[in-house]
Amino acid sequence: MAATLDSLPTPSLLLDQARMMRNAERMRARMAGLGVTFRPHLKTAKSVEAAKFILGTPPGPATVSTLKEAETFGAAGITDLLYAVCISPQKLDRVDRLRQSGVDLKIILDSVEAAEAVSAHGRQTGKPLPTLIEIDVDDHRSGVHWDDHAALLRIAAALADGAELRGIMCHAGESYDLHDPQSLAAASAAERTRMAAAAQCLRAAGFACPVVSVGSTPTALSAEQYDGVTEVRAGVYMFSDLVQAGIGVCGIEGIALSVLATVIGHQRDKNWIITDAGWMALSADRGTAGQAVDQYYGLVCDPDGEPYSDIVVLRANQEHGIIAARPGSNVKIPELAVGDRVRILPNHACATAAQHDCYHLLDENNQVAAIWPRFRGW
Amino acid sequence: MAATLDSLPTPSLLLDQARMMRNAERMRARMAGLGVTFRPHLKTAKSVEAAKFILGTPPGPATVSTLKEAETFGAAGITDLLYAVCISPQKLDRVDRLRQSGVDLKIILDSVEAAEAVSAHGRQTGKPLPTLIEIDVDDHRSGVHWDDHAALLRIAAALADGAELRGIMCHAGESYDLHDPQSLAAASAAERTRMAAAAQCLRAAGFACPVVSVGSTPTALSAEQYDGVTEVRAGVYMFSDLVQAGIGVCGIEGIALSVLATVIGHQRDKNWIITDAGWMALSADRGTAGQAVDQYYGLVCDPDGEPYSDIVVLRANQEHGIIAARPGSNVKIPELAVGDRVRILPNHACATAAQHDCYHLLDENNQVAAIWPRFRGW
Repeated sequence: MAATLDSLPTPSLLLDQARMMRNAERMRARMAGLGVTFRPHLKTAKSVEAAKFILGTPPGPATVSTLKEAETFGAAGITDLLYAVCISPQKLDRVDRLRQSGVDLKIILDSVEAAEAVSAHGRQTGKPLPTLIEIDVDDHRSGVHWDDHAALLRIAAALADGAELRGIMCHAGESYDLHDPQSLAAASAAERTRMAAAAQCLRAAGFACPVVSVGSTPTALSAEQYDGVTEVRAGVYMFSDLVQAGIGVCGIEGIALSVLATVIGHQRDKNWIITDAGWMALSADRGTAGQAVDQYYGLVCDPDGEPYSDIVVLRANQEHGIIAARPGSNVKIPELAVGDRVRILPNHACATAAQHDCYHLLDENNQVAAIWPRFRGW
Repeated sequence: MAATLDSLPTPSLLLDQARMMRNAERMRARMAGLGVTFRPHLKTAKSVEAAKFILGTPPGPATVSTLKEAETFGAAGITDLLYAVCISPQKLDRVDRLRQSGVDLKIILDSVEAAEAVSAHGRQTGKPLPTLIEIDVDDHRSGVHWDDHAALLRIAAALADGAELRGIMCHAGESYDLHDPQSLAAASAAERTRMAAAAQCLRAAGFACPVVSVGSTPTALSAEQYDGVTEVRAGVYMFSDLVQAGIGVCGIEGIALSVLATVIGHQRDKNWIITDAGWMALSADRGTAGQAVDQYYGLVCDPDGEPYSDIVVLRANQEHGIIAARPGSNVKIPELAVGDRVRILPNHACATAAQHDCYHLLDENNQVAAIWPRFRGW
């Protein structure tokens, strides 16, 4: 098809194929070199075509954040899946249906009460569900605290009669607040050693723990070794974004995702350019707000994807974006007329992509080589 | 059908029919009392069923924020539409197709360059497009500055040969930063008098200005009179949200929209409850962050919709929400087990609804009386 960018309506979501390929290869080579299985998180892409592009092997392994993802990717032959959000009892019947359809879906939990519900369900169906226990390695969100081995053993015991303990997993989400290689390497080392100790605790008590799964894009790109870890998960690395660039694990030139927008007006006395890409197209994610360089609602590039110096989407309403110099900068805004196009790099790839129904895949000449549908929902 | 809330998967979007009806009636009565046409903005609902419920008359009048909305609502018989985002030249062919299909779509613009493009297009097709000039009444976003009558006249002149000047419109978006009735009434008065003066300027120069269209939910709910104004637009009023409650133009008990979520875990030492509704279900909109009461990512209610005192979604990741006491409050978190349900009131109805593919319509017994599909895209 090879449509030009000029022919696209705006706002449209663009995906630079060469950059995505480089991001995927970099991570794949890194994980192979560190001797661990890599289980990409498909919540960033939410696209069967993108998933098949990213995955080396058809059935996975891969990670999902919703049962809808498990159903959609499973139906497309991506069947080795970890559902990396703690299960609620109401979702177990749907997990059963997925497994009966041939999807090898693993679930996670972090409490005795959930473990008892999963075990009771397994006794009732006669089909124990493969289950990982989530460990909290950095006080970020969910999981059994890494030091609370007594709680870990209680959960493992509660799984014994009716579930299949497959191992442990964690998400090192606090790494998103870091921005120097030493701290990131330390966070990755803490993730690894805390998980290895939890696995050792289970094994010493006689529980099986074949899988030790860790992850987050920043720690995966900062790890120096993975002794005691069997697999790593990451998602945003495949497209990358301004938050990852601010953390320091990729460069701006590695960001594969952008939003094409059209200039619809100016406020010349304020040095504002107004476009048709507001938060509906960009998302309201302000993930760089706390970083050293605040990118506001996104960094503005010319139509070829070359960033303008210090030009950001300063404000975003539903279908309006206000482009201006980054506060504190003295740069002049670019000379753009009504109808001219810009591209906007996202703060958070997962959030921006989620606002769109498809990717327009760009080849090396910035021509649209393909359209990849996205899905959403739960 | 009348399904119970218990039977819904989570996260799900809920819409309280009685509250929406009261919100719609309140605005309709208000506008009728003030003697103006009311043109609801359908960007909040993005649902044909909701639009038909809200509109008193089948063809409109109504407002849209995208051409996709115009196409979808137009195909459903809602044909008196104003596209309230400045037009870019690339979109004019699509506007023509809409008008040829029977949709009476009006467009807006705020520059001589756009006016010249629209006029040239009209001369080429022989079908002048009905066009309003956007006025900036409060330094918020787009529009010709309210005091710059010379610029207004230049744009009107540029429309003369090839377009049909239908009037002027504005969006009083700065009202979102107000929170007391006096300031809101003053903002509404400024909106009205600045628009009336702009209309008078056009008419004095011999231009027609049949339509003087103003709007924003806060000013519409605060206006004391509308002399010189012919129509008012507002969207978020139909569902309302925590931002509007913080502004003071509705109460918490008027918010018709909520997200149903399930408890998936706890961090008891941190007094956190973790649910399966993260920013993917709630949106990343933090519109109350600058208000007197910060609602973080949403205010938490019991399954019947009764708010817990000072319990908010403190943090949101993609598919995780962390529920906690509002920082500064000493309230205890509610006793909720894994599998229990909560409802979360949104900061910004437009943004939260946009994350979902349908509304679950609740009757007075909190039973699901209907499912209304939503659409999105451009």
